[in-house]
Amino acid sequence: MKFATLPGGRDGRLAVVSTDLAWYADASHLVPTLQALLDDWDRHFPVLQALATELEHGAIPRERFHEREALAPLPRAYQWADGSAYVNHVELVRKARGAELPESFWHDPLMYQGGSDDLRGARAPIILADEGWGCDMEAEICVVTGDVSQGVSPAAALDHIRLVGLVNDVSLRNLIPDELAKGFGFVQSKPASHFSPVFVTPDELGDAWTGGRLNLVLRVDLNGEAFGRAEAGEECTFDFGTLIAHLAKTRRVMAGSIIGSGTVSNRDPDGSPGRPCKDGGRGYSCIAEQRMIETIASGKPATPFLRYGDSVRIEMRDRAGHSIFGAIDHTVVKP
Amino acid sequence: MKFATLPGGRDGRLAVVSTDLAWYADASHLVPTLQALLDDWDRHFPVLQALATELEHGAIPRERFHEREALAPLPRAYQWADGSAYVNHVELVRKARGAELPESFWHDPLMYQGGSDDLRGARAPIILADEGWGCDMEAEICVVTGDVSQGVSPAAALDHIRLVGLVNDVSLRNLIPDELAKGFGFVQSKPASHFSPVFVTPDELGDAWTGGRLNLVLRVDLNGEAFGRAEAGEECTFDFGTLIAHLAKTRRVMAGSIIGSGTVSNRDPDGSPGRPCKDGGRGYSCIAEQRMIETIASGKPATPFLRYGDSVRIEMRDRAGHSIFGAIDHTVVKP
Repeated sequence: MKFATLPGGRDGRLAVVSTDLAWYADASHLVPTLQALLDDWDRHFPVLQALATELEHGAIPRERFHEREALAPLPRAYQWADGSAYVNHVELVRKARGAELPESFWHDPLMYQGGSDDLRGARAPIILADEGWGCDMEAEICVVTGDVSQGVSPAAALDHIRLVGLVNDVSLRNLIPDELAKGFGFVQSKPASHFSPVFVTPDELGDAWTGGRLNLVLRVDLNGEAFGRAEAGEECTFDFGTLIAHLAKTRRVMAGSIIGSGTVSNRDPDGSPGRPCKDGGRGYSCIAEQRMIETIASGKPATPFLRYGDSVRIEMRDRAGHSIFGAIDHTVVKP
Repeated sequence: MKFATLPGGRDGRLAVVSTDLAWYADASHLVPTLQALLDDWDRHFPVLQALATELEHGAIPRERFHEREALAPLPRAYQWADGSAYVNHVELVRKARGAELPESFWHDPLMYQGGSDDLRGARAPIILADEGWGCDMEAEICVVTGDVSQGVSPAAALDHIRLVGLVNDVSLRNLIPDELAKGFGFVQSKPASHFSPVFVTPDELGDAWTGGRLNLVLRVDLNGEAFGRAEAGEECTFDFGTLIAHLAKTRRVMAGSIIGSGTVSNRDPDGSPGRPCKDGGRGYSCIAEQRMIETIASGKPATPFLRYGDSVRIEMRDRAGHSIFGAIDHTVVKP
């Protein structure tokens, strides 16, 4: 099943979307919001499943679904915690500044607690007060959980994944070094994140979803040109079960928690840190990574961070070429 | 006005509590939850104010208020961000491990983004899976905001403070060094926080609330003995307006966000790092601070972190000796 949230109050109203993203049925008379569904999944899900079946068959009144109208599926959430499943990305970031990757990073996930009070839609502009902050996209996969017990195992955690989606975890690169030096993680350097128009249940992903990894290409375009085409299932050191178990080590994780994969990142098949898409490589899911490659290669970065008017598009297609989650597609603007 | 949340669903139900904490009136027929009030404050507040007036006058049916029945006023929230307003505390922590305090810490607040999906009540036990994690209390003041614009000034931010309360920001000291060394802040080392039975509007604090600081003693007891008696208004380097403005530099802060002061901490009047309550000092609002003093004085800490069965009580009284928020009063237990 596919879910979207349409405008209406702080939490919007729940809609069930057809598999081809062409149609939707308002579900808010049954379950008002996506959070309400997550709060009582076992009771509500069968009812919505029946609605989805009728929608697919055209058996009920339906409306055209326009991705541009969708809010973030959870316009605000009780938790947004972002991992770093792609250790390749972490290693590159550190390499560019001459720091070694601690060996522990290969078995102990990096994760940060993000702000979740203001989650933005896929077409909502990236509001940037200062171009000098070094605005960057981070294209990622995310999951939404049900209630998870403290101390859950990675394998058992997989059963608590209710939904899968995409996120642009917008980052302010030039604020990060000073903020991380303070030692308490990200606050100012991670502004509002933007989410795909639609979140889907794992069964919509078919055999592309295995063991808490999504084996499809994450397509990232910058100003209309291919920027990233990483295989999200490759070099994904930590599956989502492991990330959820990490978060749940010392506390419960409650329904509606969103967990991110971190920036999707691949090495080149030849083992090198990869090449830009325009040079035939798989490219990058954030500008910082391309800048690191440039720095490693020529001593300094060449690609600028995002400027006013720049556009970012993030999408994932199934093997038949159909968009699964709809596209995050937005532009950087002044407040 | 004073608000509590009583059991009933994931968000509980809103109650208005009398100033003396003796009585309450269920308000959930008017406004179901505290978050709902915060979402539409200007519309709901006058209605609840009328209810509170009737409660004070005994003009409506009322029930005995028992602090032990209260959930966290927001049993889950869209944001919990904790500052470090008491730089004295930060300096001591660093001193104990031989690290200098960067000069910038006196004008650039430390703040971390905490988990907010599972906020616990004042009498709920501290559930600790492993005594070896080094469980500690951090007694703090917190505020709850309405909607705050990005880029708000510290002075303007004060107008967005809707409620004030107390929090025990439980910390797992022995997990902190390794987690902070990873550079992404706290995830596992900050389990669920516990909140006072009641949150109050700033006007309830009278002239003790000035310029975003609360000028009263924060009383912390450990196993029934005085452990901390710090003046929360003294040596509070950053007022709550400054903390909110810090959080809002690069993004909006939405209604229902909880902002913490960090561990309340005073030096001794003679300028030294302070003395335990039993030695006539103002003591400490966390065990770690007392351990640091012990380490500075004698080379090693003497006071152990919390063990199963230990109890912590955190309360603040007005100048007439009446409890303002009710008491956080709980025991450490095995899951």
